[in-house]
Amino acid sequence: MTTYAATACAGANIAFIKYWGNLDEALRLPLTNSLSMTLDTTVTITTVVFDPALQGDQLTLNEEAIVGPALERVSTHLDHLRRLAGVTLPAHVTSRNTFPTGAGIASSASAFAALTMAAAAALGLDLSPKELSALARLGSGSAARSIFGGYAELIAGARHEDAYAVQIAPPDHWPLVDIVAVVSREHKAVGSTGGHALAHTSPLNPARLAHVHTALARARSAILARDIETLGEVMELDALTMHAVMMTSRPSLLYWLPGTMAVMHAVRSWRQEGIPAYFTIDAGPNVHVITLPDYATEVQARLRAMPEVKEIITCQTGKGAILLGDERP
Amino acid sequence: MTTYAATACAGANIAFIKYWGNLDEALRLPLTNSLSMTLDTTVTITTVVFDPALQGDQLTLNEEAIVGPALERVSTHLDHLRRLAGVTLPAHVTSRNTFPTGAGIASSASAFAALTMAAAAALGLDLSPKELSALARLGSGSAARSIFGGYAELIAGARHEDAYAVQIAPPDHWPLVDIVAVVSREHKAVGSTGGHALAHTSPLNPARLAHVHTALARARSAILARDIETLGEVMELDALTMHAVMMTSRPSLLYWLPGTMAVMHAVRSWRQEGIPAYFTIDAGPNVHVITLPDYATEVQARLRAMPEVKEIITCQTGKGAILLGDERP
Repeated sequence: MTTYAATACAGANIAFIKYWGNLDEALRLPLTNSLSMTLDTTVTITTVVFDPALQGDQLTLNEEAIVGPALERVSTHLDHLRRLAGVTLPAHVTSRNTFPTGAGIASSASAFAALTMAAAAALGLDLSPKELSALARLGSGSAARSIFGGYAELIAGARHEDAYAVQIAPPDHWPLVDIVAVVSREHKAVGSTGGHALAHTSPLNPARLAHVHTALARARSAILARDIETLGEVMELDALTMHAVMMTSRPSLLYWLPGTMAVMHAVRSWRQEGIPAYFTIDAGPNVHVITLPDYATEVQARLRAMPEVKEIITCQTGKGAILLGDERP
Repeated sequence: MTTYAATACAGANIAFIKYWGNLDEALRLPLTNSLSMTLDTTVTITTVVFDPALQGDQLTLNEEAIVGPALERVSTHLDHLRRLAGVTLPAHVTSRNTFPTGAGIASSASAFAALTMAAAAALGLDLSPKELSALARLGSGSAARSIFGGYAELIAGARHEDAYAVQIAPPDHWPLVDIVAVVSREHKAVGSTGGHALAHTSPLNPARLAHVHTALARARSAILARDIETLGEVMELDALTMHAVMMTSRPSLLYWLPGTMAVMHAVRSWRQEGIPAYFTIDAGPNVHVITLPDYATEVQARLRAMPEVKEIITCQTGKGAILLGDERP
């Protein structure tokens, strides 16, 4: 019997203008555009083998066999690709992250970007980056951005085929550094997928939606102009705005911990000293500190010296999803 | 030469629906109604002596002679009352707080409520509680509420005479307990008066304004129905909403500290155990934990046991501004 296999890798990303809330939960059509930097060293490497001998889809994540909701999410995602290819073959998906789970780096973006690219290649689908991005979005909204390297913006189209990411600038345009200050490795009580559905319960959500267009325009031109000060200001404001929506949703999502506040205040005080460092925070307690390469060593040392910081993870601007190999008859 | 003297005391208050932002900064006409509980043991006692022998206004606060902006603020306030009485006499104001400064209890509310009542009595002005409340507001917006005992709402009228507080319920209607968890005694970088002027710079402010009417209605009826669960939920949401506006204003005001987050999470986890405790936070890092009298001892003990909590201050529902004596020829 014939098998079809491919391997791809994709980097995680850190959003400067956040994705929070969907127009359509099932299709993961976002309420607003979002904008991120793709990361270089925090990647997922995924091999997909379509094999008629299998009884059903299988998932191995970081050397561990996975069943339940995580496998179902992968299966549902593979169904979209199988439908496009006109096949019903079961698959074995083997996936490895180069970064720890629960460290404040969302693995779903890199995972679904790599899975989409590997599965499409294994099935022999000839898809444009735009099509790959829209497909990746069906698995995880932010995965749409991880298809691209450098800086990417996910367009909040109202139909599946209109909601995909575009590249704002390639990785070598501006090598920013993201130093993640891990203040807790505990699993968050409400994950992103569940949280998105609560965005509309916050009385502040309409104001975020009304303001995000301005924020996107400012972030986009700050990236193109390599203006860390403007980008940093917009990034902090947007992270605070997203957490404001989260905190005031029903139920209220309070992702910050004491260590989160400590790092936020520290970053702002370092800025008073002239260090161009800015924070952003995803749906969790850990803080991403964005700075320029020249200041990375200093910021790393200062974060390591904080008792609240358990570990740091450093990334730079990365390449996006790459096909590492495929094997088709 | 004749002197005119009077002494009044007034309690501080804790707002359940916050006052943040003005329609008119000079007149302190608030953008929205606000609603608070007046406190019993955290009071200001103020004696005003109008004395023609003085060279100018004088202020003694907690046994210390005060000059500069604080004296000017008092002088400007006395001018409103002198104008009403048709006099120009200078005054000596002696004021004492029964609570420490910088402990998360705003002293301006109790101070300007007591000052207004004492000065009006010394000058022989026959003012209604409504007129006293509007006058107190000119000194400090939240002082308008401290004229009244129990639960009071400051109406955001668009003219001076329409912006005053009304009593929602007297103190004996519902004896709630406010336990202040002091996590820092440091003076805040941006005080309330400066902060109010920044409210309109937050992209989230319009959403807060649009939502506050619902919050006020829910808080009002929860107080009348003695429903701690509804009041608590509305109170936490409103505090988070105000801090969301503060954090996203320009410049961004981040009043919370690590200890603030620790108490917020602790209160929510205690609630999971069945303790009816809810938090609210003013323009500072300290957390007011509101609970029912039956649970006060338990909540006090738990707060005292937290390493982040430096001290606790406990108050109950208080009486508002009271004239303690006057001396007129």
